[in-house]
Amino acid sequence: MGKTIIFNNKPKIISTYSVAGPKESLSYINDYFDCKIDDDFFQEKTFEKAETKMLYRCILGIFEKNKLNDKDIDVILSGDLLNQITASSFSIRNFDCSYLGIYNACATFAESIIIGSMGVDGGYLKNCICATSSHFSSAERQYRYPLELGSTRPPLSQWTVTGAGSVLIDRSEIGININSATIGKIVDFGIKDANNMGSAMAPSAVDTLVSHFKTTGTKPRDYDLIVTGDLGTFGSRIFKDLCWERGYDVENQHIDCGEIIYNIKEEEFQGGSGAGCSSLVFSSYIYRNILEGKLKRVLLICTGALLSSTTTLQGESIPGISHLVDIGG
Amino acid sequence: MGKTIIFNNKPKIISTYSVAGPKESLSYINDYFDCKIDDDFFQEKTFEKAETKMLYRCILGIFEKNKLNDKDIDVILSGDLLNQITASSFSIRNFDCSYLGIYNACATFAESIIIGSMGVDGGYLKNCICATSSHFSSAERQYRYPLELGSTRPPLSQWTVTGAGSVLIDRSEIGININSATIGKIVDFGIKDANNMGSAMAPSAVDTLVSHFKTTGTKPRDYDLIVTGDLGTFGSRIFKDLCWERGYDVENQHIDCGEIIYNIKEEEFQGGSGAGCSSLVFSSYIYRNILEGKLKRVLLICTGALLSSTTTLQGESIPGISHLVDIGG
Repeated sequence: MGKTIIFNNKPKIISTYSVAGPKESLSYINDYFDCKIDDDFFQEKTFEKAETKMLYRCILGIFEKNKLNDKDIDVILSGDLLNQITASSFSIRNFDCSYLGIYNACATFAESIIIGSMGVDGGYLKNCICATSSHFSSAERQYRYPLELGSTRPPLSQWTVTGAGSVLIDRSEIGININSATIGKIVDFGIKDANNMGSAMAPSAVDTLVSHFKTTGTKPRDYDLIVTGDLGTFGSRIFKDLCWERGYDVENQHIDCGEIIYNIKEEEFQGGSGAGCSSLVFSSYIYRNILEGKLKRVLLICTGALLSSTTTLQGESIPGISHLVDIGG
Repeated sequence: MGKTIIFNNKPKIISTYSVAGPKESLSYINDYFDCKIDDDFFQEKTFEKAETKMLYRCILGIFEKNKLNDKDIDVILSGDLLNQITASSFSIRNFDCSYLGIYNACATFAESIIIGSMGVDGGYLKNCICATSSHFSSAERQYRYPLELGSTRPPLSQWTVTGAGSVLIDRSEIGININSATIGKIVDFGIKDANNMGSAMAPSAVDTLVSHFKTTGTKPRDYDLIVTGDLGTFGSRIFKDLCWERGYDVENQHIDCGEIIYNIKEEEFQGGSGAGCSSLVFSSYIYRNILEGKLKRVLLICTGALLSSTTTLQGESIPGISHLVDIGG
């Protein structure tokens, strides 16, 4: 059982900002993005610097939208997929704000919201910004092969999203409620194929979701949407099957950020992935739909594969973890 | 100003466990360690697996000492220096507990205590385990050179501690108080030498400490000990000088975990460093001295250098961050 926590004072999401890469800007949901980049390098010399600038832009967007100064924000929580989460550290050094770096792979976005919400709900922080990013090109060369090698992609592979998303959480009266959360456990089904991460993550997403249902006494129909982070097409099928086996039919509520971020054609295979996948889709498409009343209650389940290139080379399987946040209502 | 938070319900540290590597086991404070390893490989095939096993041993130690089962612990918070913090993820997958992965380099230990304390103090968690590790050999080959190369160490370099430390935080009546904390900001003084991390981190430690003094209205003499994480000998001198410049003389209270972990001789140069340095020294020597009443009030300031080998190669400077926890009293 994952640990479910209830936020009695219901901290609010009062603002979001999203930055999308060139490929993501062609998505069906591209009207919802705050900032679209038409250059993978974002005018920088390296992909890592481009990702850092993108995440910086994404956090700065929150400051600009809400006319805030650095001293108005208590803490920025952030993480990304680069070794030592340097996109986060190097973007946040430009802000005169306290910083908590966190990492649970592509589950980092929900993790940051959970920790930030504990801080705000408990009265320790007046507010916080939570942000995550990923970048296709920096991820490819770090986890797989240099792009210049032109490697063939296997059929179960996903495409790391170039994008970033951020949310501002506050004690405000107005905004979208953060009701509760479930902190996930690591679930390892022994998948060793680093190109099949949907399968590695799906069991952990089911574990966290079922924990949440049982602890809160809710059912799939209590929610308008159950959003997973980046299971992709194949992983989503496994997720729905495993939910069904555990007695929960989520077919009508489920969408996956990795599935909706691209107009899935052959070259993206299973869809998007990356720490920026769920944060980009949540802070744009999903947030706006909740804001406009088209969605009321949403479960966001960010799904992470806790591998590194070293563990894969050393023959390890891929542990999965998923964190859940109950939003809206 | 770093963000200072007060824990009104005073969560307690009720147990610790420490694991020390072969070199660390020869330290002056080696009588305080719970577990000493006499083999860098810890019977594993790789240094990364050895570090993972060491961190596992360190968390398991808390379970054994306190006769706990997995279901007795709400959340484990952990981080380490390996890419994608895999020592943490791969050790914690052996426990049936919720997991929050965090990363602020060698400031991770204090960061984990701050987040865990918010969770326990706010009533969200009944308890949590916070643990961090580092390993000399896995760090050398990831951040610097393979050991087999036999590279010469420059005079300002530090020796990454092979070790791990963990604490159990609970709402218990009995135990050592966690009174307050200051979440640090990133401070970057433009140091670009990855072998001179004490200088890169010292300004952030001063920033966090001075923030804490100002916000809480306390002075150095209100504490028995002001413990920095891993500034080393040279970094500690900079730290004390900068504190003095800001109007605080910490000469009589200050010790550095990196300085006391080794019997500093020529080959360790500036002393120890690493995410396991402060956690090992705190969870053994310092904890026991508080427990035995020899120390009352202690400020633990874990100091992190937020670089990666990629950022150094790309010509970036080294941002520093320090988190502070006020313990005891």
